[in-house]
Amino acid sequence: MSTIYTQTLPCGLKIIAEPMSGVKSIGLSWHFDAGTSAEPEDRAGLASVTSEMLLRGGGERDSKAFADVLDRIGASRNVDCSGRTMHLRSSTLGDKLIDVLPMLADNILRPRLDDSTLAPSKELSLQGLESLEDDPRERASIRASTRHFPAPFNRSIYGTESGINAITLEDVQNFWRTRSAPAASVLAVAGSVDPDQLFQKLGELTEPWSGEHETIEPAGSPVRGVDHIEDDSNQVQIMLLAEAPAESDERAALLTKVAVNVLSGGMSGRLFTEVREERGLCYAVSASYRGDDRFGVLSAYVGTTPERAQESLDVLTAEMLKITTPEGRITESEFHRAKIGMKSNVVFHSESTAGRAVGLSGDQRRLGRARSLDEILRNLESVTLEEVNAHLAGFRLLGVTLQTLGPKELTPPASLGI
Amino acid sequence: MSTIYTQTLPCGLKIIAEPMSGVKSIGLSWHFDAGTSAEPEDRAGLASVTSEMLLRGGGERDSKAFADVLDRIGASRNVDCSGRTMHLRSSTLGDKLIDVLPMLADNILRPRLDDSTLAPSKELSLQGLESLEDDPRERASIRASTRHFPAPFNRSIYGTESGINAITLEDVQNFWRTRSAPAASVLAVAGSVDPDQLFQKLGELTEPWSGEHETIEPAGSPVRGVDHIEDDSNQVQIMLLAEAPAESDERAALLTKVAVNVLSGGMSGRLFTEVREERGLCYAVSASYRGDDRFGVLSAYVGTTPERAQESLDVLTAEMLKITTPEGRITESEFHRAKIGMKSNVVFHSESTAGRAVGLSGDQRRLGRARSLDEILRNLESVTLEEVNAHLAGFRLLGVTLQTLGPKELTPPASLGI
Repeated sequence: MSTIYTQTLPCGLKIIAEPMSGVKSIGLSWHFDAGTSAEPEDRAGLASVTSEMLLRGGGERDSKAFADVLDRIGASRNVDCSGRTMHLRSSTLGDKLIDVLPMLADNILRPRLDDSTLAPSKELSLQGLESLEDDPRERASIRASTRHFPAPFNRSIYGTESGINAITLEDVQNFWRTRSAPAASVLAVAGSVDPDQLFQKLGELTEPWSGEHETIEPAGSPVRGVDHIEDDSNQVQIMLLAEAPAESDERAALLTKVAVNVLSGGMSGRLFTEVREERGLCYAVSASYRGDDRFGVLSAYVGTTPERAQESLDVLTAEMLKITTPEGRITESEFHRAKIGMKSNVVFHSESTAGRAVGLSGDQRRLGRARSLDEILRNLESVTLEEVNAHLAGFRLLGVTLQTLGPKELTPPASLGI
Repeated sequence: MSTIYTQTLPCGLKIIAEPMSGVKSIGLSWHFDAGTSAEPEDRAGLASVTSEMLLRGGGERDSKAFADVLDRIGASRNVDCSGRTMHLRSSTLGDKLIDVLPMLADNILRPRLDDSTLAPSKELSLQGLESLEDDPRERASIRASTRHFPAPFNRSIYGTESGINAITLEDVQNFWRTRSAPAASVLAVAGSVDPDQLFQKLGELTEPWSGEHETIEPAGSPVRGVDHIEDDSNQVQIMLLAEAPAESDERAALLTKVAVNVLSGGMSGRLFTEVREERGLCYAVSASYRGDDRFGVLSAYVGTTPERAQESLDVLTAEMLKITTPEGRITESEFHRAKIGMKSNVVFHSESTAGRAVGLSGDQRRLGRARSLDEILRNLESVTLEEVNAHLAGFRLLGVTLQTLGPKELTPPASLGI
């Protein structure tokens, strides 16, 4: 039975700490409200370039000196961005907590962001963009998200060539200064951690930290509907996106996750069995749910050959719709399987200090509070088959985006109503 | 402070169990002496095809029914092969141990290996082989290993097109029957496990298990030397392999690992600094050590452009040689950094039940005994800078293989003596 400690520092930073028994390591997960949705319209790629530059020195230290100190502490460090956040992660041994915190504070409060690291960071972002040419699935996924979500929450992390090329040092500095405000920031530490020591040290280190923070709102309605990317490849990518409860709508999100697990969890989910095993229609098929405080999305994916593409889409759509009908109701054994699979996954992830830290900070961002492992497992345990089926009976595929990529367009199934 | 329990069952299977506090999951790692080195010469790819077929049913259950039961237990399962072993891994919750063991026993003692799964498994192996076309680094690495190790320990897991096409059901059945002998097999379980329960249940389940086992010996000397793969790409792959102590030569292997960490550990290793940061010669550079009970190999890698390839090779070679000279001796701060980095890595991996199980079974195979985390950390702690530098002063790059891939051949540095 673990205890979660939280504190909001005077600067506004929210800290969550969960000591874990039997471990020597700590995992840190630090979120900032600085994702691609905060980029200026003509600077697509700014979040990604900033994430690269954040890795290159801080405080008194240049890139090399900074990396050298982290190595002496035995600390790993990663920075990556998404639509909503910039995410700094670090792992080290618990007895190095006091050494790593000043480094991370330098990284965040006093990053170098200087001319010498701008060009290589832009170059890396351009290379990332170029690598999409060889990744048709990722290209289809980016287009699908662009159409499915309202601007500016529909932007990819890759940016655009013109956006990246236009980025100046001032852009990066402004972006980080205006978006890294402490009050919109969440830090979680899990593992071999003394919460009091953590809170006190961070209180000292963040004393000079301040800054305003502007909340980003959706601008207009998303495009959605049907879209096809003509591509001379011998693979076809099919993606179906629909509205789902936001993660902040906790119970509905949980019931949706159970349904997605029945469709696509483990090795014997419905989609795998019906689309791949029974009919041999594709090489990959899956469904997933993602949500945050604002949005929820149900996605289904098939990767297949041009010859099998139309039938794959038809069968995929039929399975996605069927689970909401009386004939498609989840069975007792499917329900049991989904629950144990979800329970196992929750436990596996929570046993790693890095995984647990990410879970805590994510909870805080999505739900406004961090849940204990016990609470998560209790919630899952409390779900009944009747409750899931009742939820699904009222669920419809709404706000659908159908994205395909391949040599020719497919016919959207009439049942999708798009 | 953890305790390791071991038992050798009457059938010859060696079992290792390490209960871990604070976790609910278990990780299982089961090795068999059935790697590519055991393939008949004209059936290259047999180990890989067998690994695919092992995933497809066992005992009374076909592929689908088997996957369904594992999902009900909430157990994951993987099978993959290497040059020396076939490796089955599984993770589940500790309270499902008694449910998962009979499934794994069915998987191993009574796999289906029937006609219905042969064709799709061969197809997947052929696809894997085909995917190498897009992976120049992997192609260079395969060729380098083929030249560096003595047959039959020099074979890749991908096999050959003719080998895979020639594989019959009888080949697979014979391969598994003759190579999955219990006495050459090691099973490790870490996490929420009761060793007595584990030993007793496995004793019952493996009662009918028997089989002879033939040890494979090297046939002749390896080729080594310089080789170039002509490839019309705008990347150049450079790999340098040399003899190193086997892992079973524990102290020498440990000292070699410290040296490799100085060259390539963390974010501030010598190679990264000298080849990439200072001179901007490449996009990737690294060194690594791998060893088992028989072999040890020191490898260095550079990925770069054709224009920078020769200089990259020259600088890489110079750095690999320099560390054995008086001017290149490891410094106090490099030594400290390498030790803390290695310590952190050992701790991180050992905190996951899956990682710990793999560590235990690997130890048993390589060293003939499983080490506790304390022993590993104590050994590391006991290494002194003087000891590493003395070891390096006596170390030479011997038995070198230089493999390149790119638009044109490079000139091997004279200092390599090849």
